[in-house]
Amino acid sequence: MAETADIEQEVVALLEAGEREEALALLTERHPAEIGGTLDELESAHAFALFDGLEHETRARVIPYVQSAHRLSLLERLDLNEQVRLLTDMDADERVDLYQEMPEGWQRRLMPALAKAEREDLLRLASYPEGTVGSVMTSEYAILPAQITSREAVERLRRQALHKETVNIAYVLGADRRLQGTVTLTGLVVAEDDVLVRDLMQQEVVQVHADEPRSEAARLIADYDLLAVPVVDADERMVGIVTHDDAMDVQEAEATEDIYKGATVRPLETGLRSTALSTLYQKRIGWLVLLVFANVFSGASIALHEETIQAHVGLVFFMPLLIASAGNTGAQSATLMIRAMATGEVVARDWLYMLVREIALGLALGLTMALAVAGIGLLRGGPDVALVVALTMVIVVLAGSLIGMSLPFLLERLRLDPATASTPLVTFVADVAGILVYFGMADLLLTMPAVTG
Amino acid sequence: MAETADIEQEVVALLEAGEREEALALLTERHPAEIGGTLDELESAHAFALFDGLEHETRARVIPYVQSAHRLSLLERLDLNEQVRLLTDMDADERVDLYQEMPEGWQRRLMPALAKAEREDLLRLASYPEGTVGSVMTSEYAILPAQITSREAVERLRRQALHKETVNIAYVLGADRRLQGTVTLTGLVVAEDDVLVRDLMQQEVVQVHADEPRSEAARLIADYDLLAVPVVDADERMVGIVTHDDAMDVQEAEATEDIYKGATVRPLETGLRSTALSTLYQKRIGWLVLLVFANVFSGASIALHEETIQAHVGLVFFMPLLIASAGNTGAQSATLMIRAMATGEVVARDWLYMLVREIALGLALGLTMALAVAGIGLLRGGPDVALVVALTMVIVVLAGSLIGMSLPFLLERLRLDPATASTPLVTFVADVAGILVYFGMADLLLTMPAVTG
Repeated sequence: MAETADIEQEVVALLEAGEREEALALLTERHPAEIGGTLDELESAHAFALFDGLEHETRARVIPYVQSAHRLSLLERLDLNEQVRLLTDMDADERVDLYQEMPEGWQRRLMPALAKAEREDLLRLASYPEGTVGSVMTSEYAILPAQITSREAVERLRRQALHKETVNIAYVLGADRRLQGTVTLTGLVVAEDDVLVRDLMQQEVVQVHADEPRSEAARLIADYDLLAVPVVDADERMVGIVTHDDAMDVQEAEATEDIYKGATVRPLETGLRSTALSTLYQKRIGWLVLLVFANVFSGASIALHEETIQAHVGLVFFMPLLIASAGNTGAQSATLMIRAMATGEVVARDWLYMLVREIALGLALGLTMALAVAGIGLLRGGPDVALVVALTMVIVVLAGSLIGMSLPFLLERLRLDPATASTPLVTFVADVAGILVYFGMADLLLTMPAVTG
Repeated sequence: MAETADIEQEVVALLEAGEREEALALLTERHPAEIGGTLDELESAHAFALFDGLEHETRARVIPYVQSAHRLSLLERLDLNEQVRLLTDMDADERVDLYQEMPEGWQRRLMPALAKAEREDLLRLASYPEGTVGSVMTSEYAILPAQITSREAVERLRRQALHKETVNIAYVLGADRRLQGTVTLTGLVVAEDDVLVRDLMQQEVVQVHADEPRSEAARLIADYDLLAVPVVDADERMVGIVTHDDAMDVQEAEATEDIYKGATVRPLETGLRSTALSTLYQKRIGWLVLLVFANVFSGASIALHEETIQAHVGLVFFMPLLIASAGNTGAQSATLMIRAMATGEVVARDWLYMLVREIALGLALGLTMALAVAGIGLLRGGPDVALVVALTMVIVVLAGSLIGMSLPFLLERLRLDPATASTPLVTFVADVAGILVYFGMADLLLTMPAVTG
């Protein structure tokens, strides 16, 4: 299979040579993801020309793969009837995503033109707040009654397949739309023709509430190796499913958010390249300015010891090294802990166990780093300096790792996001601790006649 | 559905009351992931008792969900015949994972006892290096000839379903096992009975090479919303598939690795809680000690300006603030860039475009932060100090963001992992730059009579 980048270049070359039909022929047999990706790379006039040439069903499948800013402009040029036809042909979850990107006026024009079923479905899906399971689910899933045979079930799925996103799994609902079990298409095909669905179905079904965080649906799909997870409302009535492909997108988006938070960048809605500079500025400046003011405390901690510094100006040589060590160790601890909490491996009640381990580990790391710095201290300032910096190192590294390890737990306790314990924040706290310990030790040891003499 | 944690507690209570049969009854109807998770939490004697009571097929499905250290001890207690039976019943990809965890002596004892087909399959899968597509693929997938009807195809899949991990997709192979197309079970069920597979199949199939990084398979599955991606060898012959559930595990593992690298922690093989302290120490100490020695340069940069410091000891007040600002901005830039490169959004040839954007952004961030620090400088040291710190802030923030943005590109250029541009490393480089600029500015401006006078 040719690479996507090659296809893009070929399409551009053909379009520039005026060979629109050739470009279309090359593109239409590709996967919708590749067509969408190619449209993204083209200048508007070319993208419009190609999009207009695509078949109607292809358009509905391609639109979800076009980057959001671009796709509204593709849609905008269609007349209202064509817009409605496109939306109707899209999967329910993609449709609501597109709908929510539209300005309000556009939404109001479009709504009355949709058929009643689509309109109600759209409004219901759009009602779930961003970030919830409901906001990533689809309302299209296959339903089967419990009392029919596997042969009849296959026949029903065959008819449903045209309108549903997936019929690889079908759901058996009881009274009040309560989920009684699931059955896979494979299971139905393999079974004898006259087995009843109720005897085939899996009854203990993993499910998730629509108002839980979307990451919960992704976690269940990953942990249980599911094709989809059924979603229920507060009354335990089935309202939708989250499919494996959407779970993967959620998992990637959540990882990106956590990685960003680790460096004090607030989540972006689109990719880095396509985000406007003004938006990037807004997402980055908040914590940076906050940390400028926070770091006044680091400066003040140093200023407290101006006399010590003037008496032993050589001390400042080791300052960046010691406070960076505390910060680096703290960043490691916080990062490990936040990730373990995000993947569900460590929970709040593990706090004491993790603390005990961290003390042992922090001491071992601190002693090793103290050895390294004592060597440097000996070379540069003699045994008394070596002693001060080595002792300081053990204490600040231990302090740094305990701060880094505890901050995520503390934040969770305060019902804040543990990932707020970003590396810059942990580094700042560890810096202040490091400065206070270092000059405290220096005051104590360097003014003792036995050591300085 | 009851929560997993509840089930665990109930099982433990029953086992401690000697009610093994009750505990088993409670557990056997659960999902294998929950049985595995419960076994993980139990003390060995209880875990052994429960595992022995499980049915044979259940054991084969549960074993992959038990944490690796624990599961070898469960397996060890079975006699060789039972071990072989268990391995034979497992999915091919899970089997090879388990096999690779065994010590060599055990592997040698086991191998001759396996049937020829399993033995060869195992050796072949085990031959792919860790981290490659081959190491996460399975050799069990459904194959169909192109010339049969959809009705015959469903009949064949029905027979294959018992031995394959999934028959939701089937692969049509030509001469030399070259992939000609794919067809879904749903597509076959929906189609008229006498349509030929060759007319139904999708011919442009996304595929991946066995020796590519495993993340490539995960990326394709995510980008194209696939159930599975076919894997081919160097001669383009089909050798396996990677399924959506394994792709999700790969995606999560890769994100964890990147997050760890961002804080200079080397990848762990198991979770944080279950990793031995000695292993954690090894995974953390390397970069920490390296950074201790690196930070000698920061210290040396300060020591170069000892005279300036002694003349204007008030300058050290602003030092942590300025160098932290450079480091924090650099960490943001590096983190954004590394993630965009990891998800494939930004590639090497985007370098110049990203650089131009970063200059604009770095200036905007630097000016804002300069305003903040000028205010503090004015309050604390008067207009000359305010001028020095504000000018320094603009320069170091711009420098920090350009360093953070360029380092990942540079590393990739040197064929190293861009994620090596960890926050601590970027912070260190930005620190040195910050110190040099700050005291350089101070030397320049504070000794100028017009400013100091």
